[in-house]
Amino acid sequence: MSTALRNINPTFHSVQYAVRGELAIKAEELRDDLKQPDHGHPFDKVINSNIGNPQQKGLDQAPITFTRQVAALMEWPELAKLAPPGLFPEDVLARAKELSNEIGSVGAYSHSQGVPFIRKSVANFIAERDGYPADPDMIFLTGGASAGVSLLISMLISSPSSGILIPIPQYPLYTAALAQHQGQAIEYHLDETNDWSTNVSAIEESITEAKAKGVDPKALVIINPGNPTGALLDEKTQEEIVHLCEKHHLVLLADEVYQANLHRPSTHPFTSFKKIVSARQSHVPLVSFHSISKGVSGECGRRGGYFELTNFPPELVALIYKMVSVSLCPPLAGQIGVDSMVRPPRPGDASYPLWKKETDGIHAVLAERTATMAGRLNALPGMSVVASPGALYLYPRIRLSDAAIAAAKAAGKEPDAFYALALLADTGICVVPGSGFGQREGEWHYRLTCLCPGVDEYVQKLEKFHGKWVEKYGAAADE
Amino acid sequence: MSTALRNINPTFHSVQYAVRGELAIKAEELRDDLKQPDHGHPFDKVINSNIGNPQQKGLDQAPITFTRQVAALMEWPELAKLAPPGLFPEDVLARAKELSNEIGSVGAYSHSQGVPFIRKSVANFIAERDGYPADPDMIFLTGGASAGVSLLISMLISSPSSGILIPIPQYPLYTAALAQHQGQAIEYHLDETNDWSTNVSAIEESITEAKAKGVDPKALVIINPGNPTGALLDEKTQEEIVHLCEKHHLVLLADEVYQANLHRPSTHPFTSFKKIVSARQSHVPLVSFHSISKGVSGECGRRGGYFELTNFPPELVALIYKMVSVSLCPPLAGQIGVDSMVRPPRPGDASYPLWKKETDGIHAVLAERTATMAGRLNALPGMSVVASPGALYLYPRIRLSDAAIAAAKAAGKEPDAFYALALLADTGICVVPGSGFGQREGEWHYRLTCLCPGVDEYVQKLEKFHGKWVEKYGAAADE
Repeated sequence: MSTALRNINPTFHSVQYAVRGELAIKAEELRDDLKQPDHGHPFDKVINSNIGNPQQKGLDQAPITFTRQVAALMEWPELAKLAPPGLFPEDVLARAKELSNEIGSVGAYSHSQGVPFIRKSVANFIAERDGYPADPDMIFLTGGASAGVSLLISMLISSPSSGILIPIPQYPLYTAALAQHQGQAIEYHLDETNDWSTNVSAIEESITEAKAKGVDPKALVIINPGNPTGALLDEKTQEEIVHLCEKHHLVLLADEVYQANLHRPSTHPFTSFKKIVSARQSHVPLVSFHSISKGVSGECGRRGGYFELTNFPPELVALIYKMVSVSLCPPLAGQIGVDSMVRPPRPGDASYPLWKKETDGIHAVLAERTATMAGRLNALPGMSVVASPGALYLYPRIRLSDAAIAAAKAAGKEPDAFYALALLADTGICVVPGSGFGQREGEWHYRLTCLCPGVDEYVQKLEKFHGKWVEKYGAAADE
Repeated sequence: MSTALRNINPTFHSVQYAVRGELAIKAEELRDDLKQPDHGHPFDKVINSNIGNPQQKGLDQAPITFTRQVAALMEWPELAKLAPPGLFPEDVLARAKELSNEIGSVGAYSHSQGVPFIRKSVANFIAERDGYPADPDMIFLTGGASAGVSLLISMLISSPSSGILIPIPQYPLYTAALAQHQGQAIEYHLDETNDWSTNVSAIEESITEAKAKGVDPKALVIINPGNPTGALLDEKTQEEIVHLCEKHHLVLLADEVYQANLHRPSTHPFTSFKKIVSARQSHVPLVSFHSISKGVSGECGRRGGYFELTNFPPELVALIYKMVSVSLCPPLAGQIGVDSMVRPPRPGDASYPLWKKETDGIHAVLAERTATMAGRLNALPGMSVVASPGALYLYPRIRLSDAAIAAAKAAGKEPDAFYALALLADTGICVVPGSGFGQREGEWHYRLTCLCPGVDEYVQKLEKFHGKWVEKYGAAADE
């Protein structure tokens, strides 16, 4: 290596991001292999169940037509004049015209915080959702939720002893951002035996332990609906959480990007933390993250999202503005995607019937697929899984025999990574081992998305593989 | 302030980014004021000359039609079937189809490094430009050049004594990224008396001084064409620079985002550092940055760009891949914008005549406007400016009287910020003071873009304001 590259930032080595880690890289290689006629693999396609990417090739959740028609007109505004009458619905034409008047060209930088008009639309959406007002000046549009999460974590880490409470299992963006910005991850465990519920006394214990070690807890991350768990918080727990933040002077970081992915909304509804904080008139500083990548929108590639600040003083808002201004502005395609998400067609609009049909279809398919997959995975020996009421994932627990654990050790792999690698090699299905999300010592899990079409054939592959695995390594001893 | 927000990352306070700083924020406020009928300001529009944003409202550089037609089809692929024959040129339809086959939906995450097919197109573009091969696996698509610059700077800062050589004046992204990642800016001065040329012995002196202070120089930033200076390096200087990097084991960070903005290409052509490094068979690690935000594309809002790594070992490339994977992928709208930039229509293609007319027009207008503005600003008392042969800016030097400097001091402002604030208040023209880019002690400058239409009326405003200023504060003493 050139001596010029002799030393690099040591945090680069400590960052881990399993969702696009070893398994995903191997899946890419396999996809290249499969282009050869004599590839020798026992499958002919790779299925990326490692990442919540609804519109990915092979998964093919179709985009919402309304969103894309508006976007096409924003890209080439002359199209509105050149297209024959009826090609675009009236409400689409009106929306594109309104956005063009406000934004000008989608090829121009916008306000660094996001187009003011779109931030107003977001504020209206939040107010309508919660029944409490929202301030457009406290809303920052972002390039997906991740960009905002990284920024806020880097802001809160004021010294190497700063800590942030994160759930286990967690979405690994949090540990990656903490590693990069040299903060401490303070882990608290979710309760798998109780449908992955959040236990406030477990968080309290983690705070006590962290303080005893000299770590200063600055913020609490809550992912609701959960990732990878799919769990939904009830309002009582949410109130306890806000109370805990008040008591311990914590900033509440609420990752609510799956708020529209609800499979059983009558029994497992979503309530925002903004609503809880507003109702309590709490002074807890709250950052709430949302995204167009999930929900029924699934527009990952646009890179759009927002965060809303509550109870943040103006000088901190100004500081955050300064930091986002260095990266100029979020992608305009993402910003107009946010507009479509927060202002969908309404009954009476020309686009409404199609929009309703498309979004109902996405909700129904996802709910049904999640239930089917959970039911059949639960029937497998040594496997148990909570049937997620929300989000896009299942997080099955696998009990492994001593022989399997020994074989993993011999291969130099974590046992669940060893299972996931074998699954990939045998079926072409790419999942993420639980070690990437965190789990209790001696437990093993994996996360898979519920996005694949042809659920029957898909689950058969999982079942067949698991059968062969148990045949080879034996069943785990009873607990 | 809530005690939860008692301590935040101290680097947030040290970051400065003048391009969107005090002047730009004031300009936004003025724009709001102007919506009132009795606003009381002596102008009726704000002109944002602070930022290179060609497609901004009021500047209105039209986007390239080819780029936008392809983008519209990618947003709503059914349009290709539904549109009447002839609405889209054949080559646009073919390009969109090809990209759709490769990418699938622009609403899906791509490979974190960027769509492989587009990286191949970038490699072909580089090879054709330089006459030396390029490797798609060494190319990372980014959300604009800034994202890549910040990443590479954060990688190279391995300890608080790590330093990076930056030109003065510089684009403030560099100092902002260094402040954020706690590295040392090692300044070297460009030579204004010699058309802002880069003097290798000045860099060498800065290295010596830095080492004497215990700072470890890790990399050298070169901005070519220059920002804010517009200067172009000749090949002899570029060879000396590469030699210097070899000698001092420096990584060369080549910011080449203005490579297509050449106003006098016959006397001031652009040569890439990739070409120089390849021709010398040098082992200097080189990162070359490019963007769709500038050039004739001007697609700032798409957030697209790339960097190419040369002489980087595979383990570092893998590390960079891991870091970019945490933010999932660059915006797809930016990625397809890169494709349009590196694969424009060719002679014989249906879109070529229009593309040629549009891009020729942009080049000609910018060159003419830059020359006109430089000529007239040079005629003002106390003002001198190098007529930029490249990029989008002028960086005039203003000599200020003692009375002006005293008035600035009394107002608590840097003298050039004081001048720029007065200019904004009087004319609505927003420029960035030289203190935001760096300058020698006791010198004052400002940067303005050459993007405004109606150059005659625009320069008249500058002239009239400057006349009033000199009347009020007197002329500077001769040097």
